[in-house]
Amino acid sequence: MTKGLKQKIIDQVSPDLKKVEIALEHNLKPNLKLVKKIASHLLFSGGKRLRPLLMIHSARICNYDNGFEIQFSVLFEYLHAATLLHDDVVDEAAVRRGKKAAHTKWSAPKVVLTGDFLLATALDIAAKTKEPDIISVIAKITRDMSEGEIDQLDKKGKLDLSEKEYFEIIKRKTAVLIQGACKSGAILAKADREKTDALEQYGFHLGMAFQMADDLLDYTAGAKELGKNPGADLREGKLTLPLIHSLGNASLKDKKWMENVITATSFSPALFEELKEKLYAYKGIEYTEQKALDHVKKAKECLSIFHDGQSRELLCQIADYSIERKV
Amino acid sequence: MTKGLKQKIIDQVSPDLKKVEIALEHNLKPNLKLVKKIASHLLFSGGKRLRPLLMIHSARICNYDNGFEIQFSVLFEYLHAATLLHDDVVDEAAVRRGKKAAHTKWSAPKVVLTGDFLLATALDIAAKTKEPDIISVIAKITRDMSEGEIDQLDKKGKLDLSEKEYFEIIKRKTAVLIQGACKSGAILAKADREKTDALEQYGFHLGMAFQMADDLLDYTAGAKELGKNPGADLREGKLTLPLIHSLGNASLKDKKWMENVITATSFSPALFEELKEKLYAYKGIEYTEQKALDHVKKAKECLSIFHDGQSRELLCQIADYSIERKV
Repeated sequence: MTKGLKQKIIDQVSPDLKKVEIALEHNLKPNLKLVKKIASHLLFSGGKRLRPLLMIHSARICNYDNGFEIQFSVLFEYLHAATLLHDDVVDEAAVRRGKKAAHTKWSAPKVVLTGDFLLATALDIAAKTKEPDIISVIAKITRDMSEGEIDQLDKKGKLDLSEKEYFEIIKRKTAVLIQGACKSGAILAKADREKTDALEQYGFHLGMAFQMADDLLDYTAGAKELGKNPGADLREGKLTLPLIHSLGNASLKDKKWMENVITATSFSPALFEELKEKLYAYKGIEYTEQKALDHVKKAKECLSIFHDGQSRELLCQIADYSIERKV
Repeated sequence: MTKGLKQKIIDQVSPDLKKVEIALEHNLKPNLKLVKKIASHLLFSGGKRLRPLLMIHSARICNYDNGFEIQFSVLFEYLHAATLLHDDVVDEAAVRRGKKAAHTKWSAPKVVLTGDFLLATALDIAAKTKEPDIISVIAKITRDMSEGEIDQLDKKGKLDLSEKEYFEIIKRKTAVLIQGACKSGAILAKADREKTDALEQYGFHLGMAFQMADDLLDYTAGAKELGKNPGADLREGKLTLPLIHSLGNASLKDKKWMENVITATSFSPALFEELKEKLYAYKGIEYTEQKALDHVKKAKECLSIFHDGQSRELLCQIADYSIERKV
């Protein structure tokens, strides 16, 4: 089932994806070889190009399909890469997309500055759209994401992180960027308010589902599928919904035990397995799956105002796939 | 003489400066108190607001004076502050504007993210100008500055840094931002190509003069005037023009001696004084002063196409002051 859906999506987007890859290569023009190297390390290591695809089809669903939607869409991949570089430095993550994180190969300052360079590249393309509202979207994304990261840093290891705080964090961390890509497609197409809002809401719900699926995978996937070690969130002291919900339901004894695991800076694979069992037992996994599914449902409902067609179908499939994916 | 010029400038700009300060307060609206605290630490610690003033008067010299030039101009102060925060983390500078650098009070990741937040604030204001060309200017500034910093990092401690390499570094590090503020004023005023180019060139030469004056002050000023310890560049392994020129003129013996001082990670005040004597003896100070003066002259020449008036006079005075200032 999952593979079928993934393949269906790939079949539909592969001609566009080829053009996206060319545009990504073409617009990356640093003066320094080192910047190219650091930026390419992340940019060309197998990203799904989800954000460009969302902008492309948000434009097309609003009847904009003159080809510029592909050229402009890559700005969201650069923006995404810029935030990943800054986040990896902030989180001191060791692995990203199955490769060593950039700052473990180059110094953190160089990685931060390469992030700035990629942000500038995104801005340059945004300016070419001649749509000031797209710049406002990018400003909002950058503001929300930077504040979200600081907030998350401040809340690291907070054992009583609430569900509400968690939703706020993942909104800023993931949903605003996906939301922004969808909204920008609508702006580019000069869509009316109703359609623009619908695509913005679609993006929000998709982003929330997407991040919850990610947070689930950090417990349920193997290292190979994940492209990084599972349990990374736990190791960094980040509480995500499966854990938050389970902590709320656990017996006092199990709660204490789980809190000890969270507080420990490292844990054995066996201990991690034991924790996972508790997340299943206290329905943290199931609850998170249900919440993600709710967002997928809402995302698809947002698309109901659009006429049937290839872009609507694809955006629906992407919503479904966001929680079915194994990586 | 110097104080007279400084006072003259201050008298002319103080009504605008008050509005700039209000706009700076007004546009800084983070959700998190911590972001406000980190951003304010730098933003409200006695900056000269040079970049906003340059945008304001570049707009006015092109007959744009409806008041929006003040509202929009603060974007360059935010952008400047954003780059200072990232640079301080990169350089591991301990002191900035007479206060402890932000990252010595807060963790480097939080400072980097606050820099991102300030960049977003700048973008948000830029979007409000509805001028895509201003966005392109900001993109170019961000790109050049990030690459310039990486380049400088890579060249730290390079004993044979050439004059050409030095000019390239200070262009990216300082001149592009000042140039961009001037150009954006012209764009806002919808000035013709000739005037836009003239203001862009003015800004370039002013920026070059400004940075050379800064590099001179790092040798000639006292700690109190400077707001940071003199000799900071040397301590960080950054070769600036006074030293580059002197190394080129020095006897083999003195060259070796100077290279040893550069390579040492720390040095006594007495040794620093001895080095300064050599910079005077080998005319590194004088040569840098002359180069800066040349740029001031060129900057003022760029203004000759404009009618006489308050803004032209002020921009001329700022050019003169850029190398007369003691801080």
